Amino acid sequence: MNALQGARDKRVRITADEKLIIDRLLLPEETTRTTLARNLGVSPAWVTKIVTPLIKRGIVTETGAAKKSGGRRARTLGINKGVGYLLGVDFGATSLNVSLASPNTEPLAEKHAAIKISDGPEQCLGMFFSVADQLLDAFSLQRSQIRGIGVGVPGPVDFSRGFLTSPPIMPGWDNYPIPGELMASYPEAVVVVDNDVNLMALGELRRGEGQYVPNMIFLKLGSDIGAGIVCEGQIYRGSSGSAGDVGHIVIEREGPLCRCGNRGCLEALAGGMAIAAEASRLAVTGESPVLSEIYRSEGRVLTAVDVGAAAAQGDLAALTLVDQSGHYVGEMLTHLVSFFNPDLILIGGGVSKIGHRFLNTVRQVILQKASPLSTRDLSIKYSDLGERAGIVGALSLAQEMLFASPVE
Amino acid sequence: MNALQGARDKRVRITADEKLIIDRLLLPEETTRTTLARNLGVSPAWVTKIVTPLIKRGIVTETGAAKKSGGRRARTLGINKGVGYLLGVDFGATSLNVSLASPNTEPLAEKHAAIKISDGPEQCLGMFFSVADQLLDAFSLQRSQIRGIGVGVPGPVDFSRGFLTSPPIMPGWDNYPIPGELMASYPEAVVVVDNDVNLMALGELRRGEGQYVPNMIFLKLGSDIGAGIVCEGQIYRGSSGSAGDVGHIVIEREGPLCRCGNRGCLEALAGGMAIAAEASRLAVTGESPVLSEIYRSEGRVLTAVDVGAAAAQGDLAALTLVDQSGHYVGEMLTHLVSFFNPDLILIGGGVSKIGHRFLNTVRQVILQKASPLSTRDLSIKYSDLGERAGIVGALSLAQEMLFASPVE
Repeated sequence: MNALQGARDKRVRITADEKLIIDRLLLPEETTRTTLARNLGVSPAWVTKIVTPLIKRGIVTETGAAKKSGGRRARTLGINKGVGYLLGVDFGATSLNVSLASPNTEPLAEKHAAIKISDGPEQCLGMFFSVADQLLDAFSLQRSQIRGIGVGVPGPVDFSRGFLTSPPIMPGWDNYPIPGELMASYPEAVVVVDNDVNLMALGELRRGEGQYVPNMIFLKLGSDIGAGIVCEGQIYRGSSGSAGDVGHIVIEREGPLCRCGNRGCLEALAGGMAIAAEASRLAVTGESPVLSEIYRSEGRVLTAVDVGAAAAQGDLAALTLVDQSGHYVGEMLTHLVSFFNPDLILIGGGVSKIGHRFLNTVRQVILQKASPLSTRDLSIKYSDLGERAGIVGALSLAQEMLFASPVE
Repeated sequence: MNALQGARDKRVRITADEKLIIDRLLLPEETTRTTLARNLGVSPAWVTKIVTPLIKRGIVTETGAAKKSGGRRARTLGINKGVGYLLGVDFGATSLNVSLASPNTEPLAEKHAAIKISDGPEQCLGMFFSVADQLLDAFSLQRSQIRGIGVGVPGPVDFSRGFLTSPPIMPGWDNYPIPGELMASYPEAVVVVDNDVNLMALGELRRGEGQYVPNMIFLKLGSDIGAGIVCEGQIYRGSSGSAGDVGHIVIEREGPLCRCGNRGCLEALAGGMAIAAEASRLAVTGESPVLSEIYRSEGRVLTAVDVGAAAAQGDLAALTLVDQSGHYVGEMLTHLVSFFNPDLILIGGGVSKIGHRFLNTVRQVILQKASPLSTRDLSIKYSDLGERAGIVGALSLAQEMLFASPVE
């Protein structure tokens, strides 16, 4: 059974016209009947015609009075909390993050736990159930009051089924029926599973730098490299859920061998592992005095953050490594800018903590190599939400999927 | 004034729910109330509730009886011809193509004319007016009966305003108000201007190989190289209208100088001019006996078609040139497949006439270099509509823009 098909029965059914209103109410801004009419380009009478039945059905509610702007105060509208609650779940390679929230995605509480994703789905989902129950108990909520669960996982996802598809380094997860497992314990919940980078992009889109940005690329630079794509205000997943797999775009045809089997992929040149390996080499050979010193005094594996710190101290070898990495990332992004012409590129993930010199190089390369028209309206920034992007995205996805219009 | 804003007043106003129905009726298939309900996943009663006022307003009409499938025949529905007629206009570097069609984009008649796009907008639009009047006269139609005009131009377009933006080799066209000029003569028409490659992609999407394909890339390989992008069933234009500018993606960092100022762009390696130049070299030096012979006997500039013909005769130098070009195009497309994960890539434009060996190489490179998941559902084909793709797309765009729902 298709997971979304199964989930669909539990969704709140709305018409396409009603969806226009609901989508607006899910935005974090204050909304009245008047602002709805203005923003949608429709008459106030039309808004009232659509909103009144939604209020009667207990889906929409009057939440208070708007800030005064002359005359009497208009009532603000929002999603009725009686609809139920949401869970956001963010599985990382070594961590689990669970958030309990209102249907407007305002978090009530959050809990972290250590996991090993390589321990497999039974163990990891078991940990989720236990963490989630603690959150529910704290608010005296029942599992049946959860109406939506958004789950982020660190691998490629067949979105319509909610299954991971041939994920690397995740034994046991391939085709594992996550939605079925969760729906069995949460009988009233719509369950949606997505790739973690897609959810980071969605988090930024709904609550971060990406708000109201139609076309955006969220680039996660970590030990793996991937992109979340926002196309006309919607997360874009591609035909088999692998869109944004940009870590294996070839930048140097004769470059180093990559774990994918090709040579010169971006990940093999500028991924977290590549930067760490080069940093270790610079430390051990003494080419970088600052990295040598960090390595000797702290006795641990060096990271992109160390390289950034060394560069900030004027360490020449570290500066070169930062610039080189920025150059590779900038070249790959130039391809994407030419093809996709986004309004915004956000860079997140561990490597993005390398510092602002790196971002500067990325920007320079793109401005130099892409056409002036394609960069006319382009901003390139570090991610705003940082490590919270994924969990915010998971809640947003749960919320979106809870409201179903006829064509979805 | 924003061209679409100006045009909006002349559009047929419909609600979001009505748009669901209209969009279905614009597809080329036979549609009844029953198939509408099934395809939209709604009740037959809901369809009737939405369709009845559309019929009363003269927008939708019963067009006949559907093929019998047991019981009495259901009535098929379509857009009412009384709504008005459409013009599709395709400006090329040296040609103009105008098509007159019903609101369902069934062409009534078509006319070609020779132009030079470099003569500037006054002269080229003058030619359009004269050709279009001949078409209207033949059917005793008035200009006021034209309700939509879709115009394709060979350069980057600011879609919301309908203006060309810094087009190369098109003096006088930059920021020229094409929509205003046309609307002055066609008082009832919605006028939309778009880039020619976008319209080719739209033509394939509505009436060609791309029907019902959610995510597609149409790659035009000509003297210039560009891509039209279909994202979730809609043409994607990017933040400043330059999406799909893939001819200047760098494939060989130390490659030949490109007219854009960078080195090793795809266009400088595998564009029509690059292939023609290499073919001439092979002919003059005698490295390719077959191309030498064509050059001597026909005394004209060699093209990609000649190279394809020579390769088909087993000419070794021509075979190498075909394979090399296929390789470069395949490498660029691999980047796009990794990022965009489309269902379909269609290749059109003059260079695509080089033959099937070229397509074979393109396919091999992509299968070898992209991840298995990203190519799982991917087809790569030559364009079906060929040179008609642009004009079919122009008519489809005119038709789409004629029906306006509240949020567009």
